[in-house]
Amino acid sequence: MSDVEIGRAKRARRVYAFDDIAIMPSRRTRDPQDVSTTWSIDAYQFDIPFLAAPMDSVVSPATAIQIGRLGGLGVLDLEGLWTRYDDPEPVLAEIRELPAADATRRMQELYSRPIQPELVTARLAEIRAAGVTVAGALSPQRTQELYETVVAAGVDLFVIRGTTVSAEHVSKTGRPLNLKKFIYELDVPVIVGGAAGYTPALHLMRTGAAGVLVGFGGGAASTTRRALGIHAPMATAIADVAGARRDYMDESGGRYVHVIADGGLGTSGDIAKAFSVGADAVMLGSTLARATEAPGGGWHWGTEAHHSELPRGHRVEVGSIAPLEQILFGPSTVANGSMNLVGALRRSMATTGYSDLKEFQRVEVVVAPYSVG
Amino acid sequence: MSDVEIGRAKRARRVYAFDDIAIMPSRRTRDPQDVSTTWSIDAYQFDIPFLAAPMDSVVSPATAIQIGRLGGLGVLDLEGLWTRYDDPEPVLAEIRELPAADATRRMQELYSRPIQPELVTARLAEIRAAGVTVAGALSPQRTQELYETVVAAGVDLFVIRGTTVSAEHVSKTGRPLNLKKFIYELDVPVIVGGAAGYTPALHLMRTGAAGVLVGFGGGAASTTRRALGIHAPMATAIADVAGARRDYMDESGGRYVHVIADGGLGTSGDIAKAFSVGADAVMLGSTLARATEAPGGGWHWGTEAHHSELPRGHRVEVGSIAPLEQILFGPSTVANGSMNLVGALRRSMATTGYSDLKEFQRVEVVVAPYSVG
Amino acid sequence: MSDVEIGRAKRARRVYAFDDIAIMPSRRTRDPQDVSTTWSIDAYQFDIPFLAAPMDSVVSPATAIQIGRLGGLGVLDLEGLWTRYDDPEPVLAEIRELPAADATRRMQELYSRPIQPELVTARLAEIRAAGVTVAGALSPQRTQELYETVVAAGVDLFVIRGTTVSAEHVSKTGRPLNLKKFIYELDVPVIVGGAAGYTPALHLMRTGAAGVLVGFGGGAASTTRRALGIHAPMATAIADVAGARRDYMDESGGRYVHVIADGGLGTSGDIAKAFSVGADAVMLGSTLARATEAPGGGWHWGTEAHHSELPRGHRVEVGSIAPLEQILFGPSTVANGSMNLVGALRRSMATTGYSDLKEFQRVEVVVAPYSVG
Amino acid sequence: MSDVEIGRAKRARRVYAFDDIAIMPSRRTRDPQDVSTTWSIDAYQFDIPFLAAPMDSVVSPATAIQIGRLGGLGVLDLEGLWTRYDDPEPVLAEIRELPAADATRRMQELYSRPIQPELVTARLAEIRAAGVTVAGALSPQRTQELYETVVAAGVDLFVIRGTTVSAEHVSKTGRPLNLKKFIYELDVPVIVGGAAGYTPALHLMRTGAAGVLVGFGGGAASTTRRALGIHAPMATAIADVAGARRDYMDESGGRYVHVIADGGLGTSGDIAKAFSVGADAVMLGSTLARATEAPGGGWHWGTEAHHSELPRGHRVEVGSIAPLEQILFGPSTVANGSMNLVGALRRSMATTGYSDLKEFQRVEVVVAPYSVG
Repeated sequence: MSDVEIGRAKRARRVYAFDDIAIMPSRRTRDPQDVSTTWSIDAYQFDIPFLAAPMDSVVSPATAIQIGRLGGLGVLDLEGLWTRYDDPEPVLAEIRELPAADATRRMQELYSRPIQPELVTARLAEIRAAGVTVAGALSPQRTQELYETVVAAGVDLFVIRGTTVSAEHVSKTGRPLNLKKFIYELDVPVIVGGAAGYTPALHLMRTGAAGVLVGFGGGAASTTRRALGIHAPMATAIADVAGARRDYMDESGGRYVHVIADGGLGTSGDIAKAFSVGADAVMLGSTLARATEAPGGGWHWGTEAHHSELPRGHRVEVGSIAPLEQILFGPSTVANGSMNLVGALRRSMATTGYSDLKEFQRVEVVVAPYSVG
Repeated sequence: MSDVEIGRAKRARRVYAFDDIAIMPSRRTRDPQDVSTTWSIDAYQFDIPFLAAPMDSVVSPATAIQIGRLGGLGVLDLEGLWTRYDDPEPVLAEIRELPAADATRRMQELYSRPIQPELVTARLAEIRAAGVTVAGALSPQRTQELYETVVAAGVDLFVIRGTTVSAEHVSKTGRPLNLKKFIYELDVPVIVGGAAGYTPALHLMRTGAAGVLVGFGGGAASTTRRALGIHAPMATAIADVAGARRDYMDESGGRYVHVIADGGLGTSGDIAKAFSVGADAVMLGSTLARATEAPGGGWHWGTEAHHSELPRGHRVEVGSIAPLEQILFGPSTVANGSMNLVGALRRSMATTGYSDLKEFQRVEVVVAPYSVG
Repeated sequence: MSDVEIGRAKRARRVYAFDDIAIMPSRRTRDPQDVSTTWSIDAYQFDIPFLAAPMDSVVSPATAIQIGRLGGLGVLDLEGLWTRYDDPEPVLAEIRELPAADATRRMQELYSRPIQPELVTARLAEIRAAGVTVAGALSPQRTQELYETVVAAGVDLFVIRGTTVSAEHVSKTGRPLNLKKFIYELDVPVIVGGAAGYTPALHLMRTGAAGVLVGFGGGAASTTRRALGIHAPMATAIADVAGARRDYMDESGGRYVHVIADGGLGTSGDIAKAFSVGADAVMLGSTLARATEAPGGGWHWGTEAHHSELPRGHRVEVGSIAPLEQILFGPSTVANGSMNLVGALRRSMATTGYSDLKEFQRVEVVVAPYSVG
Repeated sequence: MSDVEIGRAKRARRVYAFDDIAIMPSRRTRDPQDVSTTWSIDAYQFDIPFLAAPMDSVVSPATAIQIGRLGGLGVLDLEGLWTRYDDPEPVLAEIRELPAADATRRMQELYSRPIQPELVTARLAEIRAAGVTVAGALSPQRTQELYETVVAAGVDLFVIRGTTVSAEHVSKTGRPLNLKKFIYELDVPVIVGGAAGYTPALHLMRTGAAGVLVGFGGGAASTTRRALGIHAPMATAIADVAGARRDYMDESGGRYVHVIADGGLGTSGDIAKAFSVGADAVMLGSTLARATEAPGGGWHWGTEAHHSELPRGHRVEVGSIAPLEQILFGPSTVANGSMNLVGALRRSMATTGYSDLKEFQRVEVVVAPYSVG
């Protein structure tokens, strides 16, 4: 730990963002087509280690199905527009047409509509009917209220996702979710987060979760640092949680909890870096919101953007650049890291001589700020 | 102390600004409504740990009253327009209408009008009549001349505020204020500063002050670094003065001198960071100047902006974004850290698992420059 | 090695770009005209240590001849337009006229035309006929297919250049080039790269190469860092490969393998820095693309810009600023480091007191980021 | 020395620019009027420690006289327009009217006019007649040719100034100036530079110079870093040369050689920083070029801007903001560090409790990059 003194009464650790690091070539190279990008968690196998983030601009039932067919996993936000509106299309259209000055306020209104449990059931059934792996996400605050509906509707993977989720939530008024008990009793594997440090992640692993989301609500559309002062640069966050995975595996006698990077993955270069510092899979937001099929229609926003009292994110225009399949598998017609995400990951692994993702976690990285290149 | 060599004949210490650091989540989370933001100094208790800065763009008698009623403390500048003009409203209006090229010169003129002691009395009486805690600020240069007027008018807290105030001011010509003697003889608790280092703050604590302002005249509207070469990044400054508080408490057998961050607090994230490195309270300027009730009417300036010989600050347009109550307590309709300052502080504490401000001073912070997030 | 912890499960080394460093004057100065910039590799001697990069925007048969006559070495890309088209001029013209949005896609098409071996022969013959040193470049992927044509056509120096070339390429499907065997059997000295680290370079040196290109496909027009996450800042890369040169010289009993910096050399200042950290020669792209004779006609692009599936570079407009001779030898009429490249290198050496390039590798450098100067 | 590894074969030292550092307040403060800014070198005393740089945009005979009367020292460039043209005013007028694209080329022509020794004599006589201290500057290249003219004309202080001047210049063709012999034989105190490191400065001190200019040709209008790769950030350069002053004083049994910061002093804050790291005086260019009386008429350029073969600087527009006296002594009507340079220096010293410049060299400085404040 490179510990520095902020002032007489405070010390701090130096941490690193994706932009601070880079991957280094090694003495061996490899053909990109010889590289494997498969990922499996619990009983589920995926050709590509990409989860589409439970955000209304990214995942609809239709895109969840499409992502599943393309080899990844689409996670539907069960507290988003799809479970609040019978037909969310006009609402999505309204959001993308909102003038900038009005956007936050109007989104606060649109998202104040109550969640309808029967829509939760219907949306998940639609995905299940297509034969792909079914995953839905709830916030910790809503999990107790809605999980039975979700489980009854049938999910393969249950995602509990908040900006910061801890194994030990304290509340004087409500009954906080007891994650350990909840996960133990649930028959479905749970992915939970965000966690952005070694200790919080280790505690989440001890709840029995199958995977931990690494993040803190800090993606492309977030202003958490400005609003709360909280920021957990992703390179350090992932490497810390990977350390927790290693130590928990020892402590638990061999249970491997998956580390899923969630947030701040703006380019294919960032995705490669996430694996290079220890991720098993990545949860993608803005990169997939650029697909022509994405429900955001070229706009992107997270749940933080419409928080009723303290919004901590913006609706941002990301553009519609290509069909989802082309964004994932190419061919790319641009050189900015937004297309052929899987091809870029393969090439990054091949250029540094690695043949699978687990090995690629050992690739050499360097600290190289200042220059853009 | 991370000491580096600048060159053969000079060493220096690495110091940190708010932008260099971030707060890290921990293993515990908490409900924001369970968090306490109360602050008390001497016999006075406040629901929120916010002092409005003695600047004409922020505090008028009316806003001092309003801030008091909302749970904070408004500090009136007793050397500003309110004690120089019977009716400062036309002057305030003129200032906000000044063309940029003329602003500094004309403000120098407007502030050259003499202070009228009877206005000091009248303004403080107005605040007292409203039943809120009364606080007024003088510069060290004027304190001897005006303090008897101030004390006679009745203040609960006496603020002595300059860009840099030391316990040991040397003057060949004038009779410098003997702070120790002055504070000892005064019957009113004194808050004094700015101080931006361990030793200067420790000496101020030894004068008997109830609180020390941490700063050096370096807020949003300041150019001290360009003009004088002097700069004391706030994260380090606060942590150093917090170290002096700890050591002085030991040396004095238990006297707790409050550390009040003053300057450079541009967003709710900065406010949370100030507490995270050791502040007991914060003095706010530009963030409150954005209130629709603020006397600056969307403009903000400090006393440095109209210094007669060496102005070291600008009049800056900050905009009028919401009523004061909404800026403090929300709901926020924007995501940039300018609204719901109290709610953001609560959430920052809750997300990291802390329940009161004193505990929150122990939260983990990291050094995370380069990335904006 | 200044090793830092990224997070619990990952460590990294701090590396440096040209922009991070600067050359320091010493106690001696010298006349620029007393400085030697000669360079020799194998049996070939050059007045200036500059290789023109095998890129269609920089080297045509005509400019290869001109560069040779001016004392340097022009390397023709044997997989570029000159070996795909009988008359590439209309294609070059089309490329510079392409609208930005279309450029990548259309270049992918233009470069999909097959390579014609008889054009390889003809282009090399044209250069040889002019009496200058002949050098042509192939990618590792095409070397086996085309090298006999190349050798038969007659080259003095054979360049194998890819973004990242290793001595140990692994392929399940193809037969990878065995560099060691290939170089051993070839009767022509080989320059090979890019390599960007100590170990990869050492392995390339062991193949018997006469020179190693230091780079990773990261020049002015590259987006490798955004697309793949891979980045090897040049100052560290060159200093590492210079370390490999030293150790290999010891290990081999005295074989001196030349270190040729390739990429990221945007100004005459960067060129001087490349030598200051250990380069024996530099391969120039964008700086020479600015010559009025350059085939790019004021535009510049690399092979990465038209990769069929994953383009990792842009066509960039660099402008046509002066004849090649003036760019190399001045007089300069601008002050931005783009003209009189040789004069600037001489002056940099003279100002620091060095008289030849090998000595200049020992000049003091400093780490000086942040300021532009 | 904080030494880092650039790569296997190269180490480097971390160095600091003015922008990287800041001055810290201390436990004592003082009245600005109690501060002394006097400076003396050899037999000459000055009220203010400012030398006007020998640049045609800054010093004419008239401004040299005016600066002398205001308490400083104007140094005339004896190789500039004033010794090449009987009436340089039309030439100065032409330079400020030149279109940007033409400026470098035309200035190369204008400065190719031969120096007329009788003009050297006449210009110095004009200054001497006014009764102020007379100082003129030559480059090392011209010193032998012109110094007898200069000495005969009568100078009090002789300045030898180049971008980088060493005590040990090596030349195969010319007869380099033997500085030690030259200074020993000369009856006039010599100020010589630029030097930017401990060893080069120590060697210059040993020549018998009365003062050393710290710099490398890197002021506001310079592009040395881009063109040559050479850069010597000023904070480190001054602190290194101050170290040489201390060691040379010991070695010489008490000779105090003055350290004069020359270049990169863009604001009053930079000036204060120069003293804070060890300077005895500062040589000012761009800050004085902003005077309404400055011959540049709002434009600024150095000799590097019109170098015949390798220009390494630009003509930059700095504007005419106030009369020279107001720029030096205020009152300032702006807050950007460009006016009341002496008042700002006094206030910087007073705020940190120092009463003379020699003491102020001991003030605490900190490393504080990233934030602007």
